[in-house]
Amino acid sequence: MARDTERRRAELRERLIDIAEAQTRKDGSASLRARALAEQAGCAVGAIYNVFTDMPGLQLAVNGRTFARLGERVTKAVSEVREAPPVERLVVMAKAYLHFAVDDPKLWRALFEVEMTQDSEVPEWYMRDLGQLFAIIAEPLAELDPNASQDEIDLRTRALFSSVHGIVMLGLERRISGVPIARMEEMIEFLLRRFASGD
Amino acid sequence: MARDTERRRAELRERLIDIAEAQTRKDGSASLRARALAEQAGCAVGAIYNVFTDMPGLQLAVNGRTFARLGERVTKAVSEVREAPPVERLVVMAKAYLHFAVDDPKLWRALFEVEMTQDSEVPEWYMRDLGQLFAIIAEPLAELDPNASQDEIDLRTRALFSSVHGIVMLGLERRISGVPIARMEEMIEFLLRRFASGD
Repeated sequence: MARDTERRRAELRERLIDIAEAQTRKDGSASLRARALAEQAGCAVGAIYNVFTDMPGLQLAVNGRTFARLGERVTKAVSEVREAPPVERLVVMAKAYLHFAVDDPKLWRALFEVEMTQDSEVPEWYMRDLGQLFAIIAEPLAELDPNASQDEIDLRTRALFSSVHGIVMLGLERRISGVPIARMEEMIEFLLRRFASGD
Repeated sequence: MARDTERRRAELRERLIDIAEAQTRKDGSASLRARALAEQAGCAVGAIYNVFTDMPGLQLAVNGRTFARLGERVTKAVSEVREAPPVERLVVMAKAYLHFAVDDPKLWRALFEVEMTQDSEVPEWYMRDLGQLFAIIAEPLAELDPNASQDEIDLRTRALFSSVHGIVMLGLERRISGVPIARMEEMIEFLLRRFASGD
C-alpha cells in the first residue's frame, strides 16, 4: 500500500515536471500557474504541494533537467576535441553553451530565474552538477596557466563563464547594448582567443 | 492658459519620475504600481497616462535618468586617467560600471528590465546616450588595435561590455555560478588585462 502511494507520488512528480517543462519551453517560467498545471496533470492543486514544496521547487526540478542536458551537451562537445589545445576546447564549450541557449531560449533563461544564490539553500545535486560543469571549464584554464592556484582557476572559470553568459544573454534578448545574434559566435571566440593568448 | 496646462503637465511628469525613481531604487522596477504612484503624486491614475504612454514609458523615463548618471560616472572616471594606456582606461571604466551597479543595484537592474530590443522602438535620446557611452569604450579598443575596422571595434565594444556586465550581474545577484562579490573587481580587471595583452 505504502509502496503504491509512493509510486503514484513519483509518477505525479514526473508528470508535473513534464508539463511544467513543456510550458516553460513554450512561454517561459513566469507563465507557470499551479491551477493550469493541476488541470493538465489531472490532479488537485493541493496535490502539487504534496510533491513539491512550492512552485519554485517545481521550477527547480525543471531546471535540474535543463541543467543536466546542458552539462551533457558541453561535455559531449569538448570530448570530441579532447586532444586539442586548451583555447580550442574553451571555444568549443562556449559555442555549445551558446547553441544550447539558442535552441531552447526559454528553458535556458529559466535557469537564471529561480532564486539560487550563494546564501540560499541550493539542493546538493544541483551544486554537484554545477561543480562538474565548472570542472570541465577549469581544465583548459589550468593548462593555460599551470602556475595558477586552484582558487585562481575557480575564479577565472566563473569570470569566463559569466562573460560568455553576458554576451549570450544580452545578444539573445536582442538588447540594444548586445552583440547582434549573427555575430555572437564570432565575438565569443574572439574574446576567448584574446583571453587565452594574453598574459 | 495652454501654457499653464503645459507647465502643470511637465511638473506632474517630473514628480512622477521622482516617485517612480525612489520606488525603483528601494524595491525594483517590478514594484511599480500606477495606483500607488498616483496616490503619492496626488493625481488620478488616469493622469499618469496623460503624461506617459504606459507604465513602461514611465520606467523608461526613470531609466533615462539612471543611464545619464551612469554615463557621467564612467566619463568622469575615464577623464581622470585620460593620458593612461588604453588598458588602464578600460579597467577604470569597467570598475566605474561595477561601482555604479553596487551603489544602486535596483536602479541599475531596471535598465535591463524594460523591453528595449534591436527591433523595438527605442527613443532617439536613449540611443544617443548609449552611442556616447559606447564611443568612450570604443576609443581605447581602437587604440589597442589600430588596424581594426569600425565594425570590428563596435562589435568588440559590445562584447566587452556584455562580458563585464555578465560578471557584474551574476556576481551582484550572488548567483551560484557567479564570481563572489569580494572578487568581482579583481576578476574584471584580470579579464580586461588578458584581453588587452592578447593578440
